[in-house]
Amino acid sequence: MIENQAKFVKYIEENKNELVNTLAEAVGIPSISGDASYRPEVVRMGKWLESQFKDAGAQTSLHDLGKQNLNGQELDLPPVVYAQIGEDPKKKTVLVYGHYDVQPALKSDGWDSEPFKLVEDEKTGRLYGRGSTDDKGPILGWLHVLRAHKALGIELPVNLKFCFEGMEESGSEGLEEFVSKEATGLFTGVDAVCISDNYWLGTSKPCLTHGLRGIAYFKLEIKGPARDLHSGVFGGMVHEPMTDLVKIMSTLVSPDGKILIPGVNDQVAPLTDKERAVYDVMDFSLSDVENAAGSKTTVSENKPDVLMARMRYPSLSLHGIEGAFAEPGSKTVIPARVVGKFSIRLVPDMQPETIVEAVKKHVEQEFEKLHSKNTMSLHPDQPGKPWMADPNHWNYEAAFKATQDIYGVKPDLTREGGSIPITLTFADKLDRNVLLLPMGRSDDGAHSTNEKLDLSNYIKGTELLGSYLYEVANFAP
Amino acid sequence: MIENQAKFVKYIEENKNELVNTLAEAVGIPSISGDASYRPEVVRMGKWLESQFKDAGAQTSLHDLGKQNLNGQELDLPPVVYAQIGEDPKKKTVLVYGHYDVQPALKSDGWDSEPFKLVEDEKTGRLYGRGSTDDKGPILGWLHVLRAHKALGIELPVNLKFCFEGMEESGSEGLEEFVSKEATGLFTGVDAVCISDNYWLGTSKPCLTHGLRGIAYFKLEIKGPARDLHSGVFGGMVHEPMTDLVKIMSTLVSPDGKILIPGVNDQVAPLTDKERAVYDVMDFSLSDVENAAGSKTTVSENKPDVLMARMRYPSLSLHGIEGAFAEPGSKTVIPARVVGKFSIRLVPDMQPETIVEAVKKHVEQEFEKLHSKNTMSLHPDQPGKPWMADPNHWNYEAAFKATQDIYGVKPDLTREGGSIPITLTFADKLDRNVLLLPMGRSDDGAHSTNEKLDLSNYIKGTELLGSYLYEVANFAP
Repeated sequence: MIENQAKFVKYIEENKNELVNTLAEAVGIPSISGDASYRPEVVRMGKWLESQFKDAGAQTSLHDLGKQNLNGQELDLPPVVYAQIGEDPKKKTVLVYGHYDVQPALKSDGWDSEPFKLVEDEKTGRLYGRGSTDDKGPILGWLHVLRAHKALGIELPVNLKFCFEGMEESGSEGLEEFVSKEATGLFTGVDAVCISDNYWLGTSKPCLTHGLRGIAYFKLEIKGPARDLHSGVFGGMVHEPMTDLVKIMSTLVSPDGKILIPGVNDQVAPLTDKERAVYDVMDFSLSDVENAAGSKTTVSENKPDVLMARMRYPSLSLHGIEGAFAEPGSKTVIPARVVGKFSIRLVPDMQPETIVEAVKKHVEQEFEKLHSKNTMSLHPDQPGKPWMADPNHWNYEAAFKATQDIYGVKPDLTREGGSIPITLTFADKLDRNVLLLPMGRSDDGAHSTNEKLDLSNYIKGTELLGSYLYEVANFAP
Repeated sequence: MIENQAKFVKYIEENKNELVNTLAEAVGIPSISGDASYRPEVVRMGKWLESQFKDAGAQTSLHDLGKQNLNGQELDLPPVVYAQIGEDPKKKTVLVYGHYDVQPALKSDGWDSEPFKLVEDEKTGRLYGRGSTDDKGPILGWLHVLRAHKALGIELPVNLKFCFEGMEESGSEGLEEFVSKEATGLFTGVDAVCISDNYWLGTSKPCLTHGLRGIAYFKLEIKGPARDLHSGVFGGMVHEPMTDLVKIMSTLVSPDGKILIPGVNDQVAPLTDKERAVYDVMDFSLSDVENAAGSKTTVSENKPDVLMARMRYPSLSLHGIEGAFAEPGSKTVIPARVVGKFSIRLVPDMQPETIVEAVKKHVEQEFEKLHSKNTMSLHPDQPGKPWMADPNHWNYEAAFKATQDIYGVKPDLTREGGSIPITLTFADKLDRNVLLLPMGRSDDGAHSTNEKLDLSNYIKGTELLGSYLYEVANFAP
């Protein structure tokens, strides 16, 4: 560790209380983006955040994203809080993304304490409160990186730009257009992107995340009669849409999760021995999956296979059927029109367009086999591409080294099974390497009751963010 | 035709207006059993009916069936109207069933006229109004059989007992217990039962109906995770209940309606040449099915095959899935617990218990093949037996002959695909032959808007009911 980095880490260690106090202030503002009545609180949170970054030495500005329609009500979108510090052309420029809005929370949902009051459990070292880990802890981590350097009177090792939005929990409305527009405006000169808005795979070992699955969602419609029919009167006489649909849906995936659609698995990037070895050592066990799912129903007893099924292989899930009888009880209807919903999670090197074509061809062939007089049509949603960043890029090398600096271990290199659409937006619009550098743990309960951030994750996580900047300065060419 | 029968027929022909006027009076009482606020009207209708039968010469009584709970409100059930006329031990005794309650109807549902005002269309000869065909026309047909004989001063050829209920459109609550109790009470000495509460197969040829399908309803439950899971995070890692359920549901029935469960089709009574010939001449065409379904999706182009699929073969329909995503839109859920709903329509000689066993064995075998870690359970509803009466019984011979007397044609001998539970109740509790002798046509729209009864069906139908009594006296041993 070089001198300035060491000073910074020491400062954070000695000012834990200040970090906790700032987090308590932030958690105290119920910035719920999904509830119109809390919109003023979201805006208040944005303004508070801007003033904090300004006090910490950044140049700041608020950016209007226009209006939204929330359940019939027209509302101003909360502003993007932009901040920047440093303009040294000899330094690298890192763009940081985070969000200052939170999920809804009521004590009556099952919280043990008031959700919008930060509560520290001295015994477990946990900080409870809505937004503690998602995503107020991480954005205040960055704030304290700035504060520490200001207090110590030392220069930051890189130039920083910050983009904090207030709508992440509600579909990031307006942000893609903003990023697109500012790619050649505010975000000019960005060399790499860092996002701290996901979690460790487990509860003890840090990780870096370099991949997310994409998704192709399908609606398979089968229509026959002009109206729902009574199965007593018509059962046996007509081709029933449900029978056809269930037959086709049964040909899509095997019970152990293998996709049965020809041409889909061929597109998956081949597994290398080196890559496979990564999964053996990951901080993750089958019981983590079982605890999260609440059942012992993993498709395999082999940990790397189960992990790879989530991170590096596609999956196909059948979500349900629209138009059929879905209530409790016994209804003897022959539904006239049914729509099967299923989706495929996409991984590198799968091309969404090719996958849509393969699904279309397959369901058409399967429908033809049925010799049904009903009619079938496939309606794919706009697919979302998978994302994978090059983990050999200096942005990742810096994060690996910084994690070793602070935690003394080599972090796991993970991918996640779901999507964080904004990641793809930054990667695509800015054409820069994006790093996901989580602060919290897998059991933080981000969208759940009793959301928490471990104090140690907050403190060491802040040290990690600052150290990452020092290592960027070291590793970047 | 013997003299008295001919006099009766002539009387009905000459008193058409009286028949229409009585029907207008009955349709004017909105005796909707399914709506608590109309309950006084149902009771008023019962009392009106009783007084009409008393005036026509019958001994009458009202029978309390106790209370019901309708949407949390405790209500008196409408009474059974009982009537009897004739006690000659040398004559046969026929029990007639009918119902005086009706389906709900509002002009705003799409009626061309006020539903509770009988409207005669002189051009088409149709009588429009709620209850005209279901079932006020038929029960007033019986009333006019009595009135005509009283006016003519001639004796009825058989003893008659009448059982009219006011809850048929709401599950016949209380009736099964009543019939059971009165089997050895009011209904002592009954030789045969006649019910006029169904419809011709088509629109031009009368029919007698001697069979109804039963039903076995199944709920197939598959459970896995303790809660719904996100397909991004868990897709590929765990056995998904929907995948298992859809696989099993796809093994139950072929797209052309053949039941694939071993041991089910073996139980169906074999088809004889004589029986097959019946279907060739039935007044029914594929276009009748197509018009009713609103689509050209019959499982075959061969009329007898399509008719037999409804009347004499079992069918299996997949109704839907509870617990899965059934709304419009795109949700990426892995449902934790799903329940597939399906039912089998039963025909002679199928034994409900054996069918339930066969289904259980089949789904267990299919589930085993999946090697899934989820759990499966099958929940069958209480099954309803199929019903078939012997069409060679004098009760049917009398109805065949009476139809030829009045319509000049041999009626079709049909079965229906659905169930009329009260039929089975009378057949079982009284152990007597039951005849279904319809008055209206297939296009009467019994539960629909613009319900109608053709004047000719009302008049000739009334003549048929009376003539049937004369033929009973001729044919009964």
